[in-house]
Amino acid sequence: MNEIFDIIGLIAATLTTSSFAPQVYKTWREKSSKGISLTMYSMIFIGAALWLIYGIHIQSAPIIIANIATEIMVSMMIYFKFKY
Amino acid sequence: MNEIFDIIGLIAATLTTSSFAPQVYKTWREKSSKGISLTMYSMIFIGAALWLIYGIHIQSAPIIIANIATEIMVSMMIYFKFKY
Repeated sequence: MNEIFDIIGLIAATLTTSSFAPQVYKTWREKSSKGISLTMYSMIFIGAALWLIYGIHIQSAPIIIANIATEIMVSMMIYFKFKY
Repeated sequence: MNEIFDIIGLIAATLTTSSFAPQVYKTWREKSSKGISLTMYSMIFIGAALWLIYGIHIQSAPIIIANIATEIMVSMMIYFKFKY
């Protein structure tokens, strides 16, 4: 039974994390960060770091995996915001 | 000791959830959803619903609170994307 919920958690992690991908791609392709809020991405960056600490503590694989991946994506968006 | 991690989780929840607020405000103020990816927000919407199921199962208050709030914010962005 727990495996089902782990799978649900992992699908959730995949969706919310890869949800950043289209925005990363769009920003990279259009070479424009207009309409992108740096405040938003900065808050997600700090938030994901804290989620990571929380996830490690409660030993939740979906939370750990999701937030490592989120940090990678968000770092790219912050880089683009300064570059474009 | 657990309380500390619950507080970390709640701060994480507040940051990642309220991170949507500037983008919601910016989109509403500029009456423009240019640069906003509908794909991104649709994926977050489904992902947050699954996180909610997962959070209820593992009885994690930060996950439950974060994802209810996320659904409210993301619903607003999807509404703006169709309106503007």
